[in-house]
Amino acid sequence: MAGFDIVAYLEEKKALVDSALTEFFPETNPLFPMMRYSIEGGKRIRPILALTTYQAAGGSDIDAVMPTACALELIHTYSLIHDDLPCMDNDDLRRGKASSHKRFGEAPAILAGDGLFAYAFELFTYGDGLIAEKIAVVKAVSEAVGPKGVVYGQLLDIATEKSMTPHALRMIHRYKTAEFIAVSVRAGAILAQARPAVLATLQRTGLYMGMLFQYTDDILDVIGEKSMLGKTPGKDSDAGKLTAPALYGLDGARFRAQRYAARAIERFRSLGDTYAILASLTSFILDRTF
Amino acid sequence: MAGFDIVAYLEEKKALVDSALTEFFPETNPLFPMMRYSIEGGKRIRPILALTTYQAAGGSDIDAVMPTACALELIHTYSLIHDDLPCMDNDDLRRGKASSHKRFGEAPAILAGDGLFAYAFELFTYGDGLIAEKIAVVKAVSEAVGPKGVVYGQLLDIATEKSMTPHALRMIHRYKTAEFIAVSVRAGAILAQARPAVLATLQRTGLYMGMLFQYTDDILDVIGEKSMLGKTPGKDSDAGKLTAPALYGLDGARFRAQRYAARAIERFRSLGDTYAILASLTSFILDRTF
Repeated sequence: MAGFDIVAYLEEKKALVDSALTEFFPETNPLFPMMRYSIEGGKRIRPILALTTYQAAGGSDIDAVMPTACALELIHTYSLIHDDLPCMDNDDLRRGKASSHKRFGEAPAILAGDGLFAYAFELFTYGDGLIAEKIAVVKAVSEAVGPKGVVYGQLLDIATEKSMTPHALRMIHRYKTAEFIAVSVRAGAILAQARPAVLATLQRTGLYMGMLFQYTDDILDVIGEKSMLGKTPGKDSDAGKLTAPALYGLDGARFRAQRYAARAIERFRSLGDTYAILASLTSFILDRTF
Repeated sequence: MAGFDIVAYLEEKKALVDSALTEFFPETNPLFPMMRYSIEGGKRIRPILALTTYQAAGGSDIDAVMPTACALELIHTYSLIHDDLPCMDNDDLRRGKASSHKRFGEAPAILAGDGLFAYAFELFTYGDGLIAEKIAVVKAVSEAVGPKGVVYGQLLDIATEKSMTPHALRMIHRYKTAEFIAVSVRAGAILAQARPAVLATLQRTGLYMGMLFQYTDDILDVIGEKSMLGKTPGKDSDAGKLTAPALYGLDGARFRAQRYAARAIERFRSLGDTYAILASLTSFILDRTF
């Protein structure tokens, strides 16, 4: 991938996702503008992962994967809205503007989150054909983002009493973030009808990428800038949360992030040339500043 | 259906649903007991509707419909947990015991709700075969319970300023309750591979049944007893909410409930003898005291 411009690639794919997302948010009723408010401004990492593995696995009809890719962003946004609530992490700033409950009030924010979550599952059903693959996506995503995944991770994350151990940190990172990143990587390949062995490798590799993603998130919470992050840095560290830098120090966290990145890159490369963009994407996540 | 004992029928089906629900809630992690806590004690109306139409439409493998039937109860329970939150209806009592946020705290309650919602979509994928039908169920349910259905209905319901008009009442009842009841009726028939014309009739009829259901709910909020309801009566009337008795008076609400019931019963009967239980169920809902 010499000379490959990952930043340009991300911008191009983000524009495609943003354009598709706009179509999915008509002014149907007052809930849709509230949902769209929180959708705006995201990096679109999860949709881009799905689009990228779809194409890497030989998929050629971008319209067949786009609703699923967008649905992943809806679920991510729902989880941000609920995580930001006063009774959870109490964040006023998200994606560079007032978080949903600051803008609309607590009850509407909870409902905007609920609405996004439900709407995502509607999007998974969009388009003709690929019905076995769609069911596989619904199953994989609901597992990854539900009570055995993201929701459990969030419960662990808000627990006031927890042991500050590598095991506890791994649990939070895996359930809160890595499983969701892994299923985003895998979903594209499922819709491209990739072989089971490839899907299994993508799952493992996606988990490494997901761990890396949360490590860099934890690191940016310490060293990142508000204007770049679009959210308030230092929230996790100040709240005494169990984060990678809190447990290992900044250098220890960086070292481990690098190790996760190396593992993911090695495995993406093992899948062949078409997966090279995912290796580049992994390096990009390692070096990200937002 | 002379001599048909609807109460015994409901008890028998409820026992089946309760037994299946127990299997779906192993002690996997601390979130599952929280979710199960709120699941316990429900009437199981939505799962029973799905089981009943499945059999009415000729379905013979109860195991093929049970995960979907249970999933409907999970979604109903999630909506109750979120509706009961302090920033929404602020209800301390639900299903005869402390509501989720009173028992576990606000953040865990929101997560228990989120977990139930996600887990429901996992359950829709359970079992072999019927993949086109499962996708149809996921699509129909996500539409009925999402931002074009239940979530929108709840947003309308909590709005502090609204016109006290028949139209506004119909909107709340339809989106908050009737669409969800209708899709519960329809889901069983989808899995039994009923013809499109039957599904269309069931949808219309389910909406009448759903309007009836919310009318009786509104009426019971005025005349019901706490010990029977398992929740605090008078909450809606006291909060100045737009309910059927608030708009039409108690007799006016009763008259209209009866009219919805008559419409539903007529249409269920038009579908043939196998749908007679659904007509009995409609009468039961009209006369219910809990």
